Amino acid sequence: MSGALKDPVKIAVLGCGTVGTQVVRLLTEQADDLAWRVGAPVVLAGVYVRDTAVPRDVVVPVPSLTSDAEALIADADVVVEVMGGIEPARTMILQAIAAGASVVTANKALLAAHGPELYEAADAAGVDLYFEAAVAGAIPIVRPVRESLAGDHVTRVLGIVNGTTNYVLDEMTTKGLAYGDVVSEAQRLGYAEADPTADVEGYDAAAKAAILASLAFHQRVSLDVVHREGISTVTADDVAAAADSGHVIKLLAIAERVDGGVAVRVHPALVPLTHPLAGVHGAFNAVFVEAEAAGSLMFYGQGAGGAPTASAVLGDVVSVARHIAQGGRGPLESNYADLPVLPIDQVSSRFQLRMFVVDEPGMLAEIAGTLGRRGISIETVRQKPAAHDAHAEVVIATHRALESDMASVLEDFKALDAVLDISSVLRIEGE
Amino acid sequence: MSGALKDPVKIAVLGCGTVGTQVVRLLTEQADDLAWRVGAPVVLAGVYVRDTAVPRDVVVPVPSLTSDAEALIADADVVVEVMGGIEPARTMILQAIAAGASVVTANKALLAAHGPELYEAADAAGVDLYFEAAVAGAIPIVRPVRESLAGDHVTRVLGIVNGTTNYVLDEMTTKGLAYGDVVSEAQRLGYAEADPTADVEGYDAAAKAAILASLAFHQRVSLDVVHREGISTVTADDVAAAADSGHVIKLLAIAERVDGGVAVRVHPALVPLTHPLAGVHGAFNAVFVEAEAAGSLMFYGQGAGGAPTASAVLGDVVSVARHIAQGGRGPLESNYADLPVLPIDQVSSRFQLRMFVVDEPGMLAEIAGTLGRRGISIETVRQKPAAHDAHAEVVIATHRALESDMASVLEDFKALDAVLDISSVLRIEGE
Repeated sequence: MSGALKDPVKIAVLGCGTVGTQVVRLLTEQADDLAWRVGAPVVLAGVYVRDTAVPRDVVVPVPSLTSDAEALIADADVVVEVMGGIEPARTMILQAIAAGASVVTANKALLAAHGPELYEAADAAGVDLYFEAAVAGAIPIVRPVRESLAGDHVTRVLGIVNGTTNYVLDEMTTKGLAYGDVVSEAQRLGYAEADPTADVEGYDAAAKAAILASLAFHQRVSLDVVHREGISTVTADDVAAAADSGHVIKLLAIAERVDGGVAVRVHPALVPLTHPLAGVHGAFNAVFVEAEAAGSLMFYGQGAGGAPTASAVLGDVVSVARHIAQGGRGPLESNYADLPVLPIDQVSSRFQLRMFVVDEPGMLAEIAGTLGRRGISIETVRQKPAAHDAHAEVVIATHRALESDMASVLEDFKALDAVLDISSVLRIEGE
Repeated sequence: MSGALKDPVKIAVLGCGTVGTQVVRLLTEQADDLAWRVGAPVVLAGVYVRDTAVPRDVVVPVPSLTSDAEALIADADVVVEVMGGIEPARTMILQAIAAGASVVTANKALLAAHGPELYEAADAAGVDLYFEAAVAGAIPIVRPVRESLAGDHVTRVLGIVNGTTNYVLDEMTTKGLAYGDVVSEAQRLGYAEADPTADVEGYDAAAKAAILASLAFHQRVSLDVVHREGISTVTADDVAAAADSGHVIKLLAIAERVDGGVAVRVHPALVPLTHPLAGVHGAFNAVFVEAEAAGSLMFYGQGAGGAPTASAVLGDVVSVARHIAQGGRGPLESNYADLPVLPIDQVSSRFQLRMFVVDEPGMLAEIAGTLGRRGISIETVRQKPAAHDAHAEVVIATHRALESDMASVLEDFKALDAVLDISSVLRIEGE
C-alpha cells in the first residue's frame, strides 16, 4: 500500500442521543487514528437531529447539527443510524442506500422488523449494511459468527442479551427478593425504564434473538416467528428451587438447529451453575455459541450504554470506510439458507415443574403416570413439606420433552385431585 | 451478486497431523457449504506430507498426498500451513507468498519468531496472511480486536491461553494437590506432554502474548521482548493463600498500554474470584480485553485440539478465498504503530508476598518500614501462626508497585533478621 492521499470518507450521523453523542465524540477525538486505520481521512459531514435548538450533551463541538436529513444523506459516503425506532429510521436508511451510501446501524428493533427489506436493498445497490451494535452492544458477535465460523456449522446460540432482566434476576438470586420489589428498585436506580415492558416481557431480547438466528444460520429470521416469554412471572420461590438443584434462572435468547429446521425463542430458563452463562452478572451480556468443529464459544461484554455501543458502531464505520477507500464494497454475504422456523410446540427442552400436591400415598405414582402417558420421563423428584400439613411441594425435573406434550400434561394435571396448583413450569437449558 | 460461475479456488494444505487432518475433513465434507459462502468452488489441491507412505488418520480420502511441496504451492491459490515449527514452515510460506498465493497459518511459534518478516512479505506481494487459529485456537479473537474494535483503543489484554497450565492450576485449586503430582497425572492422562516445558514454563503462552500484543496495539511485537515466568514454582500453599484472600491463581498472558509504551508479559497471577477469568476452567481458554469505549469484553472457547483449531483455519480460508473470488485481496491493515516495549522492571502491579518471619514485637513494623522506604504501600496483612511456635506466616498484599522497587525490597528483606524465608511473590491482576 502506498501512502497516496485518498479522498476523505464523509460520515453522516442520524440521531444525537446517548449513542449518537458518543459516536460523534469518538469520530472527532480519534480522527487521526481512524484515518490511519481506514487509509483515508474520515470526516463528520453532519448530525441529523429533529430539532437543532435542543441543547445536546456533546463533549466536543458538533460542526453541523442539521434538521435537513435529506441533504445530509445525499452528501454522505457512510450513514450511521443511531436514532432507534422504526420510522423515520427505516425511510432514511433506504434513502441512504438509494443514494449509494453504506450504512451502519445500531437499531435492533428495525432490523428485527424490516431486516430482509434493508438487506435486499443494500445487496441490490452494492453497498455495505453493518449492524454489530444492534445485536449485543459492544460485544463483537457479527464478525465472529459470520466470518470466523464461516467454515463451521453453528448448532445452537444461547444469549443473555438484555441487561435489565439480567440485573433483576441477579438481584432476586443474590438477595432472595421478589420480582416486583427488584423492578421498583431498578426503576429508582435508573436500571429499568419507567415502563419496563420491552425489557421484562422479552421484546428487546426477541428482536436480538431474530438477528442472532439470522446470523447463526445464514438466513433471514424475522421477529414475528420468535416465541417470547418474559420474566414477570418468575417468583422468588422459582429462584430458590433453581438454586436447590444447582441452577440459576436467566432470560435466554435461544436459536437452535433442530430436525427439520430452526427454532428461535426467548424465555426464562434454568442454567446450571457450572455453565459459563451462569457467571454473567448485572448489566453484562454474553452470547454462548455451539458449533460442530469449534465446540463451545462465549462472547462477553457490555450489551448497552452510549460508549460501548458507540465502540461497536465505530468498528463498523472503519470497516465500511476502508471498503470505500479501497474502492470495493458490497455485502459480506449474499447467499441465504431457507430453513423453516418451527413453532414452539415442536421444540423440545428439559423442564422443571414446581407444584403443590396433596401429600397422600399414590400421589407421586399418579403424577409420574400422567407424565409417562405423554411420553415424558422424570429425571429427578424432590418433595418438601408445605406450610399446610396435608400438602407438599414437589419439584420435578424431566428429561427432554416436546412443548406440545408438556402442554398436554399440564391439562391432564388439572383433572387430578392430587394436584392443587402448578406454581411454575420452567425450561432447563445449557446442558 | 449474480450467479455467474467463478473459477475454483485451489487450496494446498501443508501438514497432515491433528489439525491438518481435520482441515482436510472439513474442506471435503463441507465443500458445498464453502462454495456457497465463498461464491466459488473451493477445491483441495493436495496435502503436503514429508513421507507419503506413513498411514494417516484421515476420515475422508485424501485425493493427493504429496511430498513435493514446491509443485503443490506453485499451483495453489491459498496455502494452509498446519505443520507447526519454524522450518520448513517459514520457507514454504515465503514461497507461497512469492508465488502470489494467500496464506492461512495456525503456527504461533513461527508468527511470534518471524511474524514481521512474513507480514512484510505478504504486504509487499499484496496477498492475505490470516492466522486466527494461531492465537487462541477456536476462539475468534483476531477479527474482534482488529476489526470490531478498530474505532476504539485497547488498553489491556489478559489471556488464559494455555490449556495445560490452566488444567494443572485448576487441579491444584480444586483438589489441593502439589504441582508435581498434578503434572504427573496430567502426563498420564495425555493432558500434558512428556516434556511439559513449553507449556508449564510459559513459552507457548509467551508466543501467544506476542501475537495478542501485536493485534491489540496495531504494532509488531516479537517473542524476545516478552517477559516470561512459568507455573513450576507455584506451590499448594500459594494456591491456598490465594483462596484465603478470594483469589485463584492463573497463568496470564498480559499486554497493556502503559505510560511511555506497552508491556508484554506472561506469569502466574492472582485473579479475584469475581473476575470472569476466574471461571475459565480446564482446557478452556479466554481472552479478556479492556478498551476505552467498549469497556470489558471476554472471548471464551477451546484453545487447542484438532477440530476447534481447524474451525478457525476454515474461517480464514473462507475469508481469503472470498477475497480471491471477488478479485480483490490484500492485507487487512498495513499501518503499524511503533510504541516502545518496556522492560519488566518498568511495569507495575499489585503483589502478594508470602513469607515466614520470627514472631516477635516490632517485626511487622520492620517489614512495613522496608516496603515503605521503597515507596510500596501495604493494602492488607494477614498473619498465621506457623508450625514452629516462635515463627509466623505473613501474607501481604501491596498496592501497585514497580517491579524494580519490589526487587529492591526483596534484597532488603535478606538483611532483616526477622525474615526467615520469602515463600512466594505473586502479582495480582484483574482488578
